[in-house]
Amino acid sequence: MAGYTDTKQEHQRRLRRIEGQIRGLQRMVEDDKYCIDILTQVSAANSALQSFAIALLEEHMAHCVAEATRKGGAEAQAKVKEAADAIARLVRS
Amino acid sequence: MAGYTDTKQEHQRRLRRIEGQIRGLQRMVEDDKYCIDILTQVSAANSALQSFAIALLEEHMAHCVAEATRKGGAEAQAKVKEAADAIARLVRS
Amino acid sequence: MAGYTDTKQEHQRRLRRIEGQIRGLQRMVEDDKYCIDILTQVSAANSALQSFAIALLEEHMAHCVAEATRKGGAEAQAKVKEAADAIARLVRS
Amino acid sequence: MAGYTDTKQEHQRRLRRIEGQIRGLQRMVEDDKYCIDILTQVSAANSALQSFAIALLEEHMAHCVAEATRKGGAEAQAKVKEAADAIARLVRS
Repeated sequence: MAGYTDTKQEHQRRLRRIEGQIRGLQRMVEDDKYCIDILTQVSAANSALQSFAIALLEEHMAHCVAEATRKGGAEAQAKVKEAADAIARLVRS
Repeated sequence: MAGYTDTKQEHQRRLRRIEGQIRGLQRMVEDDKYCIDILTQVSAANSALQSFAIALLEEHMAHCVAEATRKGGAEAQAKVKEAADAIARLVRS
Repeated sequence: MAGYTDTKQEHQRRLRRIEGQIRGLQRMVEDDKYCIDILTQVSAANSALQSFAIALLEEHMAHCVAEATRKGGAEAQAKVKEAADAIARLVRS
Repeated sequence: MAGYTDTKQEHQRRLRRIEGQIRGLQRMVEDDKYCIDILTQVSAANSALQSFAIALLEEHMAHCVAEATRKGGAEAQAKVKEAADAIARLVRS
């Protein structure tokens, strides 16, 4: 798929940044940093994870769901249902 | 669209139930109910609103987004982007 | 409690505004408004509900939790646990 | 503070588990795993981060906020406001 490698590298960059945030949280706990500052960093990591999820979901809708809906039928319906369930899990996590 | 009227009635039923939950919250505040019980009811109303949104989104993907992706091109991309942005707003609200 | 009546009126104002948003959603569904516009309104209602919950929680911490922690002991611990559980439900709803 | 070391170790255990989930996500992206499976793992990491935050917040309310409210006055109010703001950021992240 054209451009796929770029997207994959962008995803990895995001995930490495999030891994860095989690390691930053470990250092903050280790150094007895103030709770509220740790919570602010947790919110930042959560937002970064959600942004990664939204980017992935957009890609998934543009490719997998779009392909399934072009074919139509039960497969299309199943793909849309599967995406909606994934969104519901995200919204609630 | 076949079945559309049923879906619309189901949406209205959900929204009337949520309206009832909001009025229930007004009575709880009026009657000085315990904060934690009010918060539990807020969580229930929020979940109900999110479920309504997911149902609407599933329908939107199955119809509008699917139709746009069948045609392809810039319109398809725009519809997918628009849906992803709506999901991002939901996740963050 | 000084100022309590004002707070109660402010809560009721917020809840009436949210009730108005839910009725607005019913009209949007009735008039077959565009899905994405309905979802934007759902996000707004969700945010308003969350803001109401945070205001209530702040009050609860400033009064009930503070009073319990002044007394200390098992009652204090129970109040803090109860508030943390309510926050967990909010975060996940 | 009695028991503090245990709590700190428990926090570090949670954060290392979350770091493992993030590295798992990197492998899933690397191996071109199915989007929906990656999203499920994102939701799990998000929930784990939220649970860590709630545990931290409970501790913060039981110690820092409780201590401030025992003293009372402007400091108490400021601590409660600070905690409420942190909760608002969490709910929205």
